[in-house]
Amino acid sequence: MKVIRTIAELKQALRTKRREAWSLGTEGSVGFVPTMGFLHEGHASLLKRAREENEIAVLSIFVNPTQFGPNEDFERYPRNEEKDLSVAADAGVDFVFMPPVQEMYPGKSSTTVSVAGVTDRLCGASRPGHFDGVATVVSKLFHIVEPDRAYFGMKDAQQVAVIETMVRDLNLNVEIVPCPTVREPDGLALSSRNVYLSEEHRKEALVLSQALALSDRWLAAEGGRVEALTRRITDYIQSSPSADIDYVEVLSYPSLTEPKEGEHNELDKGLLIALAVRFGQTRLIDNRLIPYGEIQ
Amino acid sequence: MKVIRTIAELKQALRTKRREAWSLGTEGSVGFVPTMGFLHEGHASLLKRAREENEIAVLSIFVNPTQFGPNEDFERYPRNEEKDLSVAADAGVDFVFMPPVQEMYPGKSSTTVSVAGVTDRLCGASRPGHFDGVATVVSKLFHIVEPDRAYFGMKDAQQVAVIETMVRDLNLNVEIVPCPTVREPDGLALSSRNVYLSEEHRKEALVLSQALALSDRWLAAEGGRVEALTRRITDYIQSSPSADIDYVEVLSYPSLTEPKEGEHNELDKGLLIALAVRFGQTRLIDNRLIPYGEIQ
Repeated sequence: MKVIRTIAELKQALRTKRREAWSLGTEGSVGFVPTMGFLHEGHASLLKRAREENEIAVLSIFVNPTQFGPNEDFERYPRNEEKDLSVAADAGVDFVFMPPVQEMYPGKSSTTVSVAGVTDRLCGASRPGHFDGVATVVSKLFHIVEPDRAYFGMKDAQQVAVIETMVRDLNLNVEIVPCPTVREPDGLALSSRNVYLSEEHRKEALVLSQALALSDRWLAAEGGRVEALTRRITDYIQSSPSADIDYVEVLSYPSLTEPKEGEHNELDKGLLIALAVRFGQTRLIDNRLIPYGEIQ
Repeated sequence: MKVIRTIAELKQALRTKRREAWSLGTEGSVGFVPTMGFLHEGHASLLKRAREENEIAVLSIFVNPTQFGPNEDFERYPRNEEKDLSVAADAGVDFVFMPPVQEMYPGKSSTTVSVAGVTDRLCGASRPGHFDGVATVVSKLFHIVEPDRAYFGMKDAQQVAVIETMVRDLNLNVEIVPCPTVREPDGLALSSRNVYLSEEHRKEALVLSQALALSDRWLAAEGGRVEALTRRITDYIQSSPSADIDYVEVLSYPSLTEPKEGEHNELDKGLLIALAVRFGQTRLIDNRLIPYGEIQ
């Protein structure tokens, strides 16, 4: 495994590796997992899949300043290079790209990639500019790595919708592979931000995964009425004394539009139940996608 | 020469052609000239250069609706497929990509590439959204064609600045090659829109190239004072009775910022004298770049 910190060196390394593959008569396909580091089992599951499905596996670790708002946690976002490299090595990654900020944004950057519509709701509403930062840095990374496939966790379902929309609209040459959320044994969705939770908040935060686990039954009990489901979930979360709800939303996925009773956009796959809730200073997100075919 | 109307077919054709080149031990470099068609000698000069400097030469012809404003000339933008194909064949182009609008924008497109700063002045000021449309469609075409080099005429100097900024900021894998403006023997810059000029306006429009030709001497005579140069150019153009000035601007290029006396941004190459003037219904642009080293 090679750790690389400059764009030029990564491109050169990938070129060499691809040509080696071609000379052996194989495709030299590249699987890519872009992350902000502080890797957990969720990331490890993406790396494992990238490793299995491609000849070359690339991980990037870059805490991207442009996707943090002025009052957000860019400076205190957790970092642990040593642990990250050990997770990457265990997964059999070929190249770890860890550019300094100056390498990704030398001088003034003037270009922004924005995705309208899917960024209006959920985290886009409370984090203005966040998804512009995500779309822009991911398009930069795609141009640098030129992956055949890129792996993203469904924990950030809206991020997946944004990236898939960008790839389709800009004709990017990459297949986006959404992967299931990885959870602790008690149900808490893995997140780099979980380390901030106090012991008490850690326990209370289970209301999120519990409410999601109950939501298909609640939806059936309410005869498919989305407003009633939203109310049940909200009530359940509010039973936890510290929970401060940012949003509880049920939207058609991946368009992230209001679902209409009994019909949906033919490109949409299911109902996304999406939650963002603060416990103390820590904002957690979680979601569940119920395929339209499975709604009773 | 092959005329191709779908993205899938073009990608397939390019893949085959590149692999042929590789199997012969050459790079299979692709030179690309994106246009809106109605080709003239200016475009032919770009195609010639793309042909000379690359193994594979690609021309695209696509009148991009998203770069026209609601009151602009999208519907009446001139088109002549037969003539265009003959110009392309003469230049030795391999592939002409002529997608219908539906192929480039199937369904709703939500993603925009915007370049701030360089788009605020000149044509960006009077054509809001124009350069977003240009940057977005050019990034789409770059992803489809994956060229090694792309050729643009300096007639649209601001467009070149926008594309160069986008390529740098988004780490696109293409070298932008700016090429000199081609002129009629009497000095008029070639433009697809010249066909709209009445005989009288055609004659009057020569004030643009004449003022640009005189501008280095005027600048020297005014001791390098940019405001005085702007005034001289404006007076000269206004001597033509039909000329309706949109702008006369002298900016540092390619940052397109106000030049400061005696100093400039180290990335900037020279002073761009940029004109946009209406003759009747027809808006013409022209410019001249005076390298900083040549200013007396």
